[in-house]
Amino acid sequence: MTTLPPEPEPIPLPPPSAHERVRSAFRRLAAAERPEAWIGLRTMEEVLVDAKAVDERVQAGEDLPLAGTVLAVKDLFDLAGLPTTAGCPGFSRVPVTSATVLTRLIAAGAVVLGKTNLDQFASGLAGTRSPYGVPASALDPAKVAGGSSSGSAVAVGLGIADLALGTDTGGSGRVPAALNAVVGLKPTIGLVPRTGVHLASPSFDCVSVFARSLALGQRALAVITGPDGADPAVRAWPADIPLGLGERPRVAIPDQAGLSALGAPARLAFDVAVGSLEASGAVVTPVDLAVFFEAGKMLYGSALVAERHASAGDVLAAGPEGADPTVSAIVAAAGRHTAHELAEAWAKVTELRAAARAVLDGYDALLLPTVPDHPDIEEALADPVGVSARLGTYSTFVNVLDLAAVTVPVAPGDRRPFGVTIATRAFEDQLGIDLAAVLTGEQEASTYPPEGTDVVVFGAHLRGQPLHDRLRGARFCGVVRTAEAYRMVLLDGTDPVQPGVMPGTAALDGERWRLSPAAFGRFVAELPAPLLLGRVELEDGSSPFAVRCDPAAADGAEGLDRYASWRGYLRFLSTAGLRSVS
Amino acid sequence: MTTLPPEPEPIPLPPPSAHERVRSAFRRLAAAERPEAWIGLRTMEEVLVDAKAVDERVQAGEDLPLAGTVLAVKDLFDLAGLPTTAGCPGFSRVPVTSATVLTRLIAAGAVVLGKTNLDQFASGLAGTRSPYGVPASALDPAKVAGGSSSGSAVAVGLGIADLALGTDTGGSGRVPAALNAVVGLKPTIGLVPRTGVHLASPSFDCVSVFARSLALGQRALAVITGPDGADPAVRAWPADIPLGLGERPRVAIPDQAGLSALGAPARLAFDVAVGSLEASGAVVTPVDLAVFFEAGKMLYGSALVAERHASAGDVLAAGPEGADPTVSAIVAAAGRHTAHELAEAWAKVTELRAAARAVLDGYDALLLPTVPDHPDIEEALADPVGVSARLGTYSTFVNVLDLAAVTVPVAPGDRRPFGVTIATRAFEDQLGIDLAAVLTGEQEASTYPPEGTDVVVFGAHLRGQPLHDRLRGARFCGVVRTAEAYRMVLLDGTDPVQPGVMPGTAALDGERWRLSPAAFGRFVAELPAPLLLGRVELEDGSSPFAVRCDPAAADGAEGLDRYASWRGYLRFLSTAGLRSVS
Repeated sequence: MTTLPPEPEPIPLPPPSAHERVRSAFRRLAAAERPEAWIGLRTMEEVLVDAKAVDERVQAGEDLPLAGTVLAVKDLFDLAGLPTTAGCPGFSRVPVTSATVLTRLIAAGAVVLGKTNLDQFASGLAGTRSPYGVPASALDPAKVAGGSSSGSAVAVGLGIADLALGTDTGGSGRVPAALNAVVGLKPTIGLVPRTGVHLASPSFDCVSVFARSLALGQRALAVITGPDGADPAVRAWPADIPLGLGERPRVAIPDQAGLSALGAPARLAFDVAVGSLEASGAVVTPVDLAVFFEAGKMLYGSALVAERHASAGDVLAAGPEGADPTVSAIVAAAGRHTAHELAEAWAKVTELRAAARAVLDGYDALLLPTVPDHPDIEEALADPVGVSARLGTYSTFVNVLDLAAVTVPVAPGDRRPFGVTIATRAFEDQLGIDLAAVLTGEQEASTYPPEGTDVVVFGAHLRGQPLHDRLRGARFCGVVRTAEAYRMVLLDGTDPVQPGVMPGTAALDGERWRLSPAAFGRFVAELPAPLLLGRVELEDGSSPFAVRCDPAAADGAEGLDRYASWRGYLRFLSTAGLRSVS
Repeated sequence: MTTLPPEPEPIPLPPPSAHERVRSAFRRLAAAERPEAWIGLRTMEEVLVDAKAVDERVQAGEDLPLAGTVLAVKDLFDLAGLPTTAGCPGFSRVPVTSATVLTRLIAAGAVVLGKTNLDQFASGLAGTRSPYGVPASALDPAKVAGGSSSGSAVAVGLGIADLALGTDTGGSGRVPAALNAVVGLKPTIGLVPRTGVHLASPSFDCVSVFARSLALGQRALAVITGPDGADPAVRAWPADIPLGLGERPRVAIPDQAGLSALGAPARLAFDVAVGSLEASGAVVTPVDLAVFFEAGKMLYGSALVAERHASAGDVLAAGPEGADPTVSAIVAAAGRHTAHELAEAWAKVTELRAAARAVLDGYDALLLPTVPDHPDIEEALADPVGVSARLGTYSTFVNVLDLAAVTVPVAPGDRRPFGVTIATRAFEDQLGIDLAAVLTGEQEASTYPPEGTDVVVFGAHLRGQPLHDRLRGARFCGVVRTAEAYRMVLLDGTDPVQPGVMPGTAALDGERWRLSPAAFGRFVAELPAPLLLGRVELEDGSSPFAVRCDPAAADGAEGLDRYASWRGYLRFLSTAGLRSVS
């Protein structure tokens, strides 16, 4: 029996109240009949109390980025007053404080529906290792939901929750996203604090977000990102990350050998994704992922697995109620490695990271299948280790190699959607989100991270012009027009040929770009005299920075105001049959 | 018998030829009679051939930053054609390629004298664990030289070598510097590639430099820094590191409990250093270093020590010729930790790093004793583990906590010099070097790292003025005067009060500051209209960036050219009895 889930409804405008959203979530929950997706559901009354509080805050004028968003929470996160089980009844305990990310999401207006099922202690990629039952895929009840964040992805996939929290060590934030046709965002390790989350493997664990849309997921990610003063492993954004892709994004993909594990539906979705990216202007290049696969095998196949023993070894050794035999066996084996084996494994990881960086050099991102195929539950129960390992083919190396990733569903024509993943270097999450937006067809969302400085350019820095490379990594923010208060002249003797912009009486067209602090600093530092950096007033009333010119350089220079823009002047030159200056 | 070493001669001008330097080094070598400082000396003929080549390159016009510098090399670095022993005869092997840093130093004009003695496999801080003999301190033949880079520090301390290479895991680049009264630079982990160096503990090993002066050491450090494409653990400079100290550097020191381990000579030198820094304007504040000491104990007292087994375990287990019993015992014990103990130790390190960052928050640097006292060789031989541990009291935590450090000798009056150490956050090496320069009395050297952008300020950004804080972390590059081509006016309605600089006919005084790319970007991004960033021509002919002003803002504004500078105008206001505007 194959039942397709109800279509998730688009986020309507004006938004329904939190109260309405919660009632609707409970209706879908009842209709879905998937109790195994949950470990601890709150009652509708409890959730409605929270919803009412959100509605009152909104009515009081608060601007809540996630107002009334219905949230499901992997049962690895502490929520004050509700038990945290980590999928193991014998481990259950009731925390008095909530995980940092939950506190932040609730403050931003999210309403918690309940705690979701998972592979015990977040160990597994099929979603079958739980005494609370086996959540089936939202797409097909005979197939696995993927793990370890199984219930969270199912809750979003069935349209019950708008958002769900997961964690991701070897793929737990991406594999279930792919197998339930939802968006899964796995940020760079360390950007989101893990305070109040039971860790499976501290060196590689990330909080992840499942969402019904990329824009909503990104909004939630922005809410939960940033140090909380409690998680010592939080990392700061570097000052020089790229904020945007060039006109022709450079995307690496696995070569034929790297794709040989794919079943037909996964291959079809992957090919559709490649085609969509190419159609949008990306240059797609096959690369050899041997070092990536080698890194992936280390997560469970080397002494790195010892972190699992540090996390759950003592608990499982005591034989608690509901211990999963596969998880227990893995964790027990993880306790038998020596420390110098682990030291050698880390030295190997350092080597593989450098090798992977070399492979990705020159590329903005790596497009990957998320999983090779969609296993039946029956198969996964019969071979819990083998199926889990197979599902991790394209996911386990991501955190070992310190990459960020985002998984989105791709639907080949009228076929069932299948997830693909876009991985980027650490901290370059936004580049992956931008490419994912091409695949989901969403409009540009806010940027992640937020810090950046805008600069308007008028001449040789424009897109396609000779100095445009100085804006590499900058984010295009649109074509702009100045107030009628400027003048453009042709500068004398510059190489390449450049215009100078200074106070005058004309409105000029330019492009607005956003740069990271270091990229902005380097861009400005490369401006030669007589160019300078000042502000310009735009016709929309804003006054961003712009590349302007020392008015003294205008003496005797040709005025270009009648062309309204440098491109206008270049067009004039070419239509006039003159030799182009660009 | 106490023999003071010959005074190292100051680097003379014009420099002697490489040939002369080498002959002089061999004379000092013979006079010193300290063969135990060396494992493999080259013959004078061999070294003179290299010196001749350097002299020819200099005569041919090459600008060699280390021309003719005599270099000693810890016998942990590969030099093609000479055996590398790591202090263990049974480990000896002859490499076919040289360590990256040696290739770089030789290319920069250094001439290698030979390989120096060390604690076997770089394990020890007293310098007594070597079958090649026990190098005595250059200051006193009855006392230890410190380890593990014993011979290298002695070679510089005796005035034989100008420079020497060491490595530093728990203090091997600082302890011997302190006990031989030379400069020791231990850069941030990962800045200098370790290709061709036998590692003791890959997560914490650094290449270090001993030098007869801070300036020479820094020059050598600049030569060896930067990726070589072979060491996967090389880290890049972040884009937002501070390049300079403020007028009143904020220096943390251990509180009384933290200094209680000090013997009288070490305490005296430390107090002298504190006094010198305070006299130069630094604000010195005692802090609780409990978390630092806790981190220091982990290097040998936790599963972190397993890296030593990964490095030398197999070699020593085979019972090679000349194996040191103490090192063998430590390495064998290091092999008995479990991988999950190591995983837990790393989780603890992450916690302690965050706690140490919190302690150092608000401080530029941490001034430390380098060692508590200067042990006799006899005592160290009788208690090799205890003395080594005691010597590491103030040094073992530095790499565990990912700090940079520099050790310089401080001479209390006419007493024997004793080293103190200045530690800084990772990548902030330059701040420590600047503070060390106060103690050695050296003039400002080149900066480490080199990248930065200069900006000239004229008004509220000047030192002591209300917006000077926007230049926090910038490096002061001097007072400057512009060409006679500018004009200064009092801007209308700005807060704080500011002048505007624009084209005119006057020469104006300003200050020149250097910023990292991100700091420059953030500084520029904070400039409000009508200020802008352009270039100014200085009377010295250079044209750095400067905070200038939109000339339109001059309409009706009061001209300030007759005061020549903003400070001149402020002085006029105060002498005129008017209310100061600052």
